Parts: sequence; structure tokens; C-alpha cells
Amino acid sequence: MRVALDLLGGDHAPDAVIDGALLAVDRDPAVEVVLVGPPAVAAALLAARGRSLPVVAARESVGMDEDPARGVRAKRDATVRTIHALVRSGSCDAAVSVGPTGAVLAGAVLTLGRISSRPAVAVVVPTAAGPVVLLDAGATSETTPEQLVSHAVLGTAYAQALGTAHPRVGLLNVGTEPGKGDQLRKDAFALLERAPVRFVGNVEGHDVPRGGPADVVVTDGFTGNVLLKAIEGASTQDLPRSALLLGVDGITVVGHGASDGEDVAACVAHAARLVGEGLLERLRATLNVGAA
Amino acid sequence: MRVALDLLGGDHAPDAVIDGALLAVDRDPAVEVVLVGPPAVAAALLAARGRSLPVVAARESVGMDEDPARGVRAKRDATVRTIHALVRSGSCDAAVSVGPTGAVLAGAVLTLGRISSRPAVAVVVPTAAGPVVLLDAGATSETTPEQLVSHAVLGTAYAQALGTAHPRVGLLNVGTEPGKGDQLRKDAFALLERAPVRFVGNVEGHDVPRGGPADVVVTDGFTGNVLLKAIEGASTQDLPRSALLLGVDGITVVGHGASDGEDVAACVAHAARLVGEGLLERLRATLNVGAA
Repeated sequence: MRVALDLLGGDHAPDAVIDGALLAVDRDPAVEVVLVGPPAVAAALLAARGRSLPVVAARESVGMDEDPARGVRAKRDATVRTIHALVRSGSCDAAVSVGPTGAVLAGAVLTLGRISSRPAVAVVVPTAAGPVVLLDAGATSETTPEQLVSHAVLGTAYAQALGTAHPRVGLLNVGTEPGKGDQLRKDAFALLERAPVRFVGNVEGHDVPRGGPADVVVTDGFTGNVLLKAIEGASTQDLPRSALLLGVDGITVVGHGASDGEDVAACVAHAARLVGEGLLERLRATLNVGAA
Repeated sequence: MRVALDLLGGDHAPDAVIDGALLAVDRDPAVEVVLVGPPAVAAALLAARGRSLPVVAARESVGMDEDPARGVRAKRDATVRTIHALVRSGSCDAAVSVGPTGAVLAGAVLTLGRISSRPAVAVVVPTAAGPVVLLDAGATSETTPEQLVSHAVLGTAYAQALGTAHPRVGLLNVGTEPGKGDQLRKDAFALLERAPVRFVGNVEGHDVPRGGPADVVVTDGFTGNVLLKAIEGASTQDLPRSALLLGVDGITVVGHGASDGEDVAACVAHAARLVGEGLLERLRATLNVGAA
């Protein structure tokens, strides 16, 4: 199991990334990490720690202040492209970055391609009633009703890979009654009733941190991002340190920009687990997409 | 100080409403409560408690499952109309209901009129860094950039009435950098930079429960409702039991449908405090609206 890791992503790169890589391989002998970044930087950091890891060269990074899609297209030697090129070629099984999510997503779409029209960021929120898969947690602010259905299908396959046999899907809304919400929710509700998922109707903001009515909660990326950050701000419990890009043709896990070594190690372990569960094959089968 | 209280609003009406009314008047001798509902019901409940309160007759209520605007227009004897008629006539200084917010809002707009194009539900979230006024917490799911500016102006006057001299206004978004978010946020950001408020830029979901960057946070009613319920679901602390309808030409306080007597008493006390602070006069002055 080989994971391509972006050495230049995150506020505490490259140190936190190297520390996370070493933690991950030390904890799970089945996991190999390939560092993707400037070889001289990697060599110096590894030497300082008396360790060695495979390194693949990539010398550019896409910053928080750049337009992600434009930045990724302009920088052919960007780490967020190379981690995905390694997955596409079969050299690695998954990609991990704690750099800007928009740039990682752009690199994934450009290099791996998509298996749904609009990829989403999926986060697993631990609750007393079991894990809740929330998507989109921030890939795209503007969403269509059809894309919310696509999120429901992808989220169902993800929840199944995580162990829920028949995931219940809820539409995030401002009340549980049908007919609630803006036009997007009204239209999505009608489509979800006919979609090949176990749709249980509208759920509300508190149903994500508390769990209960739904195993998968779908929403637009604006609301999902605000919701997740509100839970983080209000909660004393730790939220997951990693998220999955769902809808690209590969396994890509992203983390907070503020990730430390432990957080990076959690992202690598998450990616390795999803590879082991055969998530991509499940998603392709669900969506009737052939292997690349 | 007289508060008109909807006897028929809420899941536990009329008992919880009567109990709340009695708690409120017992705690603050300056507060009088006028019960608005079926006189026979009020008389029986008061007799059972060995108490008396003034009662004004209104015999209809608007349910959770009704279209609020249509229901309020059709029911001329609805409590959510009569509580506002008492304010309009000057018999009472404020109205309180823990019935469906949409119906209370429709009753307020129909009976009192508006002082802004789109009223909002404003909630005060207590944080370690001081109170944060969040609006819109659920009056209207679809919002325009101009309405977000109106929310900023109203929220500023509200925060001033609550004691913050120069409130900082933040736009709820998915990141702090300018240019973040959907078209609504991009357009609202540009307008807020030129608006007569102390605009401090974008804030994120965690900035509402934690406080810090802004005293007033503006957003659409869909996102605001989801955010508030997420905080309630994730938090161990009690959130405020009352919210203010901001933008109608009067003081109207609403509460949760699940309100018990303590919650109703908190709503009455909140309304009385805002009357005492001269909130409506401040709002009218800020918006250059003459007294009705």
C-alpha cells in the first residue's frame, strides 16, 4: 500500500509532513509513503531525523491566495499534480495533501479525472449515534439539485465502505417537513425521492453533530463548510483530521492547513484504510464507471 | 412595560405560556403581561393557579404545517395578528410568541409593517469573547446582497442597544480571504465595504460559537438556521431561548416551539429589556424611519 504525500502542503510544511509520514509508516508496516516535493528539502529533513523514505521530485506549490484551478494548470511541476500522477500511473494507491483543498481538488480533477459531475469533500463526523458522512464540506459553493443527488449516491457508497450496510440519506434543511427551504432544497427533495438511495427526508443542523436520523447528510459546499466549522467551534470533542475528495477517479485525502505531524499521519492512515476497503472500486461499481 | 403574549403558540401551549407569563411578572414588577388567546382557556388556567392576568381575545392559531403568510392572512382572529395589533395601537410595548416563527413574522409584517425590505431573525450567541449577534437565523432562505447589507445595519443597531459601542460586522463565509464564497457573498462583500457599518470582512463558522473577530455576523436565513442548530447540537452550553424579529416596526421576540415556562419567561424578559433600551427608536433613527 503506497501513499503519495504532498511535502509542500500545509502551514507547517515541510516539517510536519515529514513527521507525519514517519509516524504513519512506523505505526503500520503495510503502509509505504512516497514524499512528493523538492528532493534536496526532503533529503535534508530525512537526514536530520536519521531516516529514509522514497522521494519523487516536484518543485512547485499552489498557495492559499492563488486561484486554485488556474494555479494548478500553470504549474506543471506542482506537488498537487505529481501526487495524483503517481496514482494515475499505478505507482501509488492514494494521494494525501494538507495544502489548500481547492488546489488539491484541481490537481486531482486535472490528473485523475472525475467519476461524478461535481466532486465533493466528504467528512465523517463521529456522533453518539454512529458516524455521519457529511458532504459537500467545501469543494463547491454553488450546487444544483442534480449534484446533491450525486452527492447522495457517492456518500452512500462511502458510508457502505465504512461499514454501514444500508445508509440512510438526509437532505440538510431548515426543518424536517417536506417543502422546507430554498428552491435548491425543494428541487433536490423531489429528485432524492426518486433516486437510488435510502432517502429519509430533511434533517437539520443539529442532526450532524448528534447523529440519529441519517448516516449520510448532503448539502451544498457553502453550507457544509459553515456547518462543519461551527461544530468545530462549539464542540469540545476532536473532529476528524482528514476528509475525502469524493467523485474524482482515485483516493485523495485532504487535511487542515494547520495540520501537525499527528494530523498528517491520520490522513495517511485514512487513505490507506480506504484503499484497503476497496472504496474506489465500490464507487466505480455504484456509478457504473469502468476502471481507467 | 406591557408585553402581549401569544397564549396558543408553542408545543406546550397554553400551559407553558401561562407558567412563563406568571414567572416573568413575578420576577420583574415593572413587567405586565397581556395574554392573547381564547378567554375561557385563559380563565380556566389562571383559576387553576389562583392567579389573574389581563386577557385579550383571539381564537385562531396558525400551525407548523400551514403556509405562514397564507394562514395569517386567512385567519383574522389569529393570536399572531392580535399580539401585534396591541403593539400597533400602543396598548402594549412588545409582542412575544413561541409559535412558528414564519407565522409570527407574517403577523408582524402584516400588522406592524416593516422598517427594512427583508426582516431577519436575530439571535445573540454568548461566547467567551462576548455576545455575537447572528442574523438571519431563519426568516428567509433566499437572500440578496442588498438584504445582507440591511441585516448588517439592523444588527449593528441591535448590538449597540445591547451595549457594544462600535460593533464589528463580519460576513459569514467559507474562508477569510476576500473573493471567497458564492456569488451572493462576493457581491455582498463589495457592498459591505461601502456600507455605513464597521465591516471587518469575512468570518467563518467557528467565529460564531467562539466569538472574536465580529460582534455582528450576517448571512442568509438558510445558512444561519443550519449554523445555529449545529451549534446547539454540538454544544454543552445553553443557547439563548429567545430571538428578535429585526426589521419589523415593533419589538417582537420569538422562542423555540419546544419552549417550557422558563423559556417563555426568558422571552418576555428579553422583550422588556429591548423596550427599556429603546431599541425600536434606535433602529428607526439608524434607518431614518419616522415613528408610525
